[in-house]
Amino acid sequence: MPLEYRFRARPYDEALKSALQAFPQKAAYELVPASEALGRRIAEDIQAPFDMPRKNIAFYDGYAVRYEDTRGATASNPVKLLLVGSVLKDGEEIGLRVGRGEAVYLATSSPLPEGADAIVREEFTLRQGDYVLIKKEVELYEDVILRGEDARKGDVLISRGSVIRPQDQVLLLEIGLTRVKVYREPTIGIASVGDELLERFEKGIPYPDNYFFLVSSTLQLIGCKTVSIGILRDDPDEIVGFISKNISHYDALALIGGTARGVRDYTGMSVEKIGEVIFHATTLSPGKVSGVCKVDGKPVFLVPGHIGSATSCICNIIMPIISKIYYDGIGLLPKVLAKLTMPIEARPGLYTFRTVILEWGNDGLRATPHLKRLGGSTLITILSKAGGYILIPPGVKLSSGEIVEVTLLNPLEVFSWKLS
Amino acid sequence: MPLEYRFRARPYDEALKSALQAFPQKAAYELVPASEALGRRIAEDIQAPFDMPRKNIAFYDGYAVRYEDTRGATASNPVKLLLVGSVLKDGEEIGLRVGRGEAVYLATSSPLPEGADAIVREEFTLRQGDYVLIKKEVELYEDVILRGEDARKGDVLISRGSVIRPQDQVLLLEIGLTRVKVYREPTIGIASVGDELLERFEKGIPYPDNYFFLVSSTLQLIGCKTVSIGILRDDPDEIVGFISKNISHYDALALIGGTARGVRDYTGMSVEKIGEVIFHATTLSPGKVSGVCKVDGKPVFLVPGHIGSATSCICNIIMPIISKIYYDGIGLLPKVLAKLTMPIEARPGLYTFRTVILEWGNDGLRATPHLKRLGGSTLITILSKAGGYILIPPGVKLSSGEIVEVTLLNPLEVFSWKLS
Repeated sequence: MPLEYRFRARPYDEALKSALQAFPQKAAYELVPASEALGRRIAEDIQAPFDMPRKNIAFYDGYAVRYEDTRGATASNPVKLLLVGSVLKDGEEIGLRVGRGEAVYLATSSPLPEGADAIVREEFTLRQGDYVLIKKEVELYEDVILRGEDARKGDVLISRGSVIRPQDQVLLLEIGLTRVKVYREPTIGIASVGDELLERFEKGIPYPDNYFFLVSSTLQLIGCKTVSIGILRDDPDEIVGFISKNISHYDALALIGGTARGVRDYTGMSVEKIGEVIFHATTLSPGKVSGVCKVDGKPVFLVPGHIGSATSCICNIIMPIISKIYYDGIGLLPKVLAKLTMPIEARPGLYTFRTVILEWGNDGLRATPHLKRLGGSTLITILSKAGGYILIPPGVKLSSGEIVEVTLLNPLEVFSWKLS
Repeated sequence: MPLEYRFRARPYDEALKSALQAFPQKAAYELVPASEALGRRIAEDIQAPFDMPRKNIAFYDGYAVRYEDTRGATASNPVKLLLVGSVLKDGEEIGLRVGRGEAVYLATSSPLPEGADAIVREEFTLRQGDYVLIKKEVELYEDVILRGEDARKGDVLISRGSVIRPQDQVLLLEIGLTRVKVYREPTIGIASVGDELLERFEKGIPYPDNYFFLVSSTLQLIGCKTVSIGILRDDPDEIVGFISKNISHYDALALIGGTARGVRDYTGMSVEKIGEVIFHATTLSPGKVSGVCKVDGKPVFLVPGHIGSATSCICNIIMPIISKIYYDGIGLLPKVLAKLTMPIEARPGLYTFRTVILEWGNDGLRATPHLKRLGGSTLITILSKAGGYILIPPGVKLSSGEIVEVTLLNPLEVFSWKLS
């Protein structure tokens, strides 16, 4: 069968730029309970709605006093103050006042009554009927958190684009935000292409398309929902029909396999019949036969079937496009700085995707490029040992000892770090 | 009301050791589909069941040849070989053989036929009827992945305790493991204690116990299931009844609040009536009034109600105990090495928990301890800015510029890193 579809390897930078220009930003948002926002990307700057804390508050359970009244107090020579009130657990009693020679019992986080300017912790005191013995001298504002000490009204507490962590949930609830605006996660429909996959499926082999999980799980970890929507034959009509039928149900489609120059690689030429091939084949190594198409205004990603190429396509093509459209261009994968342990350079004329092993040493984080199959690999264990990657533009040589920006292959990599 | 429960601050190292000794390891396992194992902790070493790949395979679509036959081949002066077969997409045809002057078309990953020792990529060839023109000289094993090049039979591919990443899922499926043994996640029942929380709840305030999410979300991120099981009054009988009723339903309980020396802090004295208080109060700052109890053989954690103390309790007490019992002692939080930007030291006699801001610079990762409220804080924004923590044993002083081990507060911190 003649190969009708024409390849032209467009320079990666230009190809990616075209693809980014082809899709306008259209991030969507949803309001979710702060309690369920863990791990989501926040879509708004969160500002302090008031000074935090709003008033001077007690840092410990103890007695609110005038610090001058405690002068000279010791365990053996305590100062005796009149107890004029008591506020338990974060409470406030309006009208309470601490005058000279007086004290009020406060639970942690309760606002200081008027007149009080220090807290004597409970362990340095002894109750005696209506009085309390103070056994320690305290300073002005000792164990007091001052109004606005934590944040001033209007300060940005959480920046747009941040991933919400446990402490951010607490912060949101503390300022009364029980619901928070987060980016809606786009849903990507993923299909694998290949007669041999279908044969495996028909033989009852579970998971005939292993690389599905590489694409699917990685996209899940950076904020996408993914759906497995089938295995397609190497048949242009079937591919065209499949895309036409599914494109309206998903925010984007990804087709794994069938993108190369082989005699049965049809995805690119198929998409051409129903949409626009923005590029297919680019100066990215591995990942050269990646492609980006536009059908009904949505991206259809052509993902090569090699594991190294597929990874490169996910990191260097799919992610920036997903980020532009659905995440306002936020970087979706974590980055680190690391010292290269050996020189590496780009392959001639190619943006070269190199996976690296990351190891912590006393000189910091070290990045060691994989020796085998430099530039890309079908070797699955290499990807398993990899922690991150570097994309080296053509003509660029990196020296041993140079500090380079390494992008983690996924956020779970952080769990695999071992300190030497 | 007199304070009946007696405090004795036990040295943290000794207290933690007692607590660890009080609970035997009893990790449980479950088999999950590899497709659903993303983010789980694997509970077995995964060894290569065979040489990977099992045979010499093609790295690209192209023609399997004897490399010697390609000598001197160029685009203008190609070598003509007889096409004796064709193997599409990962297939294998038994009995195929490449003799002198012969070639077989192979799709990527297909095993090389007997006699072949190199691949000529399709783009350097031209089909002519029963023949193929080879336009490039190739080397021995060019574009061939050798048997066992990826891994030898018996090599450990994934180590016990690893968190399963997308590329590990692919690897598992590649070696035919559709199900994998992972650690069962323990379920922790979490309750908050405090009359004032109940009052807020009764007023209809959503999430009256904000710190619940600090405990709950952090534990979720390191491999626990968590359930909110209520808000308790500051009432010893209620606390005793609650623990008795719930302990059989969960792997552990955590009670937030009511652990201090205040006049209404009852959790420790309550547990004493139905179980063993292993320690309550320890030389940990913040987090001094943390406690660990044993009821019906299970841990009941007493978590202080301050945000800094609660965090310290989670990291320094709850996690190591959960790890010992349910995760064979695996470190559950990711660690990094960072350069201290200022000297810090332990508070006298105290294991001092210090949160640090982590920033990437050209000299590596820098850790800056928080200046405000050294050692701990009720200030919520400090925890929000923090990336990790250091635990400094008493008597230890760390110098500016020193490389220290920093534990991330949770794995999501990796998303918040900015490179300078």
